[in-house]
Amino acid sequence: MKDAPMYIPNLDDMLAARVRIAPHVHRTPVLTSSFLNELTGAELFFKCENFQKAGAFKVRGASNAVFGLSDEQAAKGAATHSSGNHALSLSYAAGRRGIPCHVVMPRTAPQAKKEAVIAYGGKITECEPSTSSREEVFARVQEETGADFVHPYNDPRVIAGQGTCSAELREQVEGLDAVIAPIGGGGMISGTCLTLSNLAPEVEVFAAEPEQADDACRSFRAGHIIADDAPVTVADGLKVPLKDLTWHFVSHHVTDILTASEQEIIDAMRLTWARMKIVMEASSAVPLATILKNRERFAGRRVGVIITGGNVDLDRLPWMES
Amino acid sequence: MKDAPMYIPNLDDMLAARVRIAPHVHRTPVLTSSFLNELTGAELFFKCENFQKAGAFKVRGASNAVFGLSDEQAAKGAATHSSGNHALSLSYAAGRRGIPCHVVMPRTAPQAKKEAVIAYGGKITECEPSTSSREEVFARVQEETGADFVHPYNDPRVIAGQGTCSAELREQVEGLDAVIAPIGGGGMISGTCLTLSNLAPEVEVFAAEPEQADDACRSFRAGHIIADDAPVTVADGLKVPLKDLTWHFVSHHVTDILTASEQEIIDAMRLTWARMKIVMEASSAVPLATILKNRERFAGRRVGVIITGGNVDLDRLPWMES
Repeated sequence: MKDAPMYIPNLDDMLAARVRIAPHVHRTPVLTSSFLNELTGAELFFKCENFQKAGAFKVRGASNAVFGLSDEQAAKGAATHSSGNHALSLSYAAGRRGIPCHVVMPRTAPQAKKEAVIAYGGKITECEPSTSSREEVFARVQEETGADFVHPYNDPRVIAGQGTCSAELREQVEGLDAVIAPIGGGGMISGTCLTLSNLAPEVEVFAAEPEQADDACRSFRAGHIIADDAPVTVADGLKVPLKDLTWHFVSHHVTDILTASEQEIIDAMRLTWARMKIVMEASSAVPLATILKNRERFAGRRVGVIITGGNVDLDRLPWMES
Repeated sequence: MKDAPMYIPNLDDMLAARVRIAPHVHRTPVLTSSFLNELTGAELFFKCENFQKAGAFKVRGASNAVFGLSDEQAAKGAATHSSGNHALSLSYAAGRRGIPCHVVMPRTAPQAKKEAVIAYGGKITECEPSTSSREEVFARVQEETGADFVHPYNDPRVIAGQGTCSAELREQVEGLDAVIAPIGGGGMISGTCLTLSNLAPEVEVFAAEPEQADDACRSFRAGHIIADDAPVTVADGLKVPLKDLTWHFVSHHVTDILTASEQEIIDAMRLTWARMKIVMEASSAVPLATILKNRERFAGRRVGVIITGGNVDLDRLPWMES
C-alpha cells in the first residue's frame, strides 16, 4: 500500500470482513473475574483473543487480507516482515486458503519463533537484523514471487479485520462504557475505533502502552506521530510505531492513552494468570495495569478489556527473571 | 460421617445439589482445540473447572455441603483437614454463607497455601505433620466448635456436588462417547459416575492416574481398596487413597483406569498451556497424558475431559525444574 493514496477503512469494510473471516476465526469468549472487579471497582469484561486461532487477534486482520485477494493475486501468495503474531497469523490464513506465505525474519530471531511460523506453513527468508537489509530482502522476495504485502497494521484490510473483535464484544456485553486495548502500531486500537465510533459512539476507547515504549502516548499529546528507535519493554508486541492509517484513528477517536511501568505490567500479567487462569502475553496485561493505577477513571463503569494474545515463551516468564 | 452407615448419594441428591449450589458456582465453559483434536484423533471437549470459583471443581461439593446444613448446624460452622483445593473451597463456601470454616493443616504446609485459605476466610489450626497429630487436633477442633466435618471426597454431599459438573457437560456437548477425569480420592470420578450412570449410561467413564500414585488403578484391578502410604507425584492433588463411598462408584461404574508417567503428565500440562492458553494444575493434565498414550481407545470418539483445577504455584512450574 506504500505509494497508494491512503484509503481509510469504513464500517462496510468491517462488516464485509466479518462475513469473510467468520469460517476461519473463533468468536472468542468473554470472561469475568469477581476478584478483579472488586480490586478495580469496575466491571471488567475480558475479550479473550489469547484463545483465538494462532493465539492472537492478528489472525482477524490477516485472514481478511488473505481471503479478500483475487484468485489471481492469491496464487502468488502473501508476504510480510514480522517475527511476531502477525507472521503466525498470516501463515495460518494463507495455509487455510492453500496459498504461499513468505515471511522475512532477521536471522537472529529466536528459533522458537521461526519454528512456529514454519509449523503454520510460512516460508521464511532470513535477513540481517537491520532495517536496510530487511527492506532489501523483502523487496527481492516480493519481486520474485509477486506476493501481496500485508503490513502488520498499517493496512486498511488489516484494520477492518481487527475491528471485528469489538463488534463481537459489543454483542456479548450490553451497556459497555469503555473499551481498552494495548497499543503498539495501533492496528487493534484502530479497528476498535472504526467499529465503535460507528456502532456505539458513546463507548470510550482507551489505549494502554508501556511507559518504556510510550511513543503513541507522546504522539497523542503532541498531535503528530513520534516514532521511537528501539524501545525496550517486556511487552514485546508493543514496540512498533504508529503509521499514517493508525494515526488517523488514534488521533480522531481515542479518548486517552494511559501508560504503565514494566513492574506494573508484570504484576498485572501474573495477577491475571493467577486469578483468571489464562495464559496471556505481557502486552495483554498493559490494559489491566493501567486500570489499576487509574482507578478513578474506570470505577463504577463497564469496561471491555481486550486480551490480545497468548503466545508466550513458557520457559521464560517475566516474573521469574527479576 | 465416620460411624454412620454408608449412604450412597443418588440422582435426586445430585439434582438437589445443582439447585442448591447454582448461585455460588460458575457454569464453567467448555473449550476445544483443533490442534489437540488432530494430535489425538479424538474430539476433545475440555470442561474448564480451572475457571471455577476458588479455582477448582471442589467448590461444587463443598458448597453443597455448606448450603445443605441446617441453620442450627451452620451456626457452628464447617471443618475439614486439607491443605489443597478442598480447604479453599470449603472456606469460600462457608464465607458465602457467613459461617466459620475451620481448617486443620500441618504447620509445615507451604505459607502460600495457608495464606490462600485465610484469604478465603478459613480459620487455620496447625497440627504436626503426622496422621496421629492431625486426627487429634481435628477431633479437638470439632469438639470445641461443634463444626460439621466435610470430608474432601468420602462424603455423599460432596460426591453429589461434584456430580453437577458432568450434568452441565452433558448439556453443553451433545453425543459424548466418554468422559475422563483425574482420580485421587475419587470424588470427581464418583460424582461423574453418579450423574452419567443415571442420565447417560451409554457414556463411558475413564479415570486417569499418575503411575507413581496408581493405587486406584491397582485397587480397580484387584477388586478391593489398596491404599499407598505416601506416593510422590507432580500431580499433588491425586495422592490420596480411595475410601468406601468412592470405591463404590469406581468399582461399579468406571470403564477403566489409565496411568501416565511423571514426564508424560508434565508434557501434557505444558502442551495444554501452550496450545489452549489456560493455566491448569498438573493433576488436570493426567487425562490428556493418558489419551495421548492410549490413542486407539479414544480416536474417533467424542470425549469430555475434566480440567479439575488451576491453582498452580506460578513461581515453580514443573517443566522448569528438570
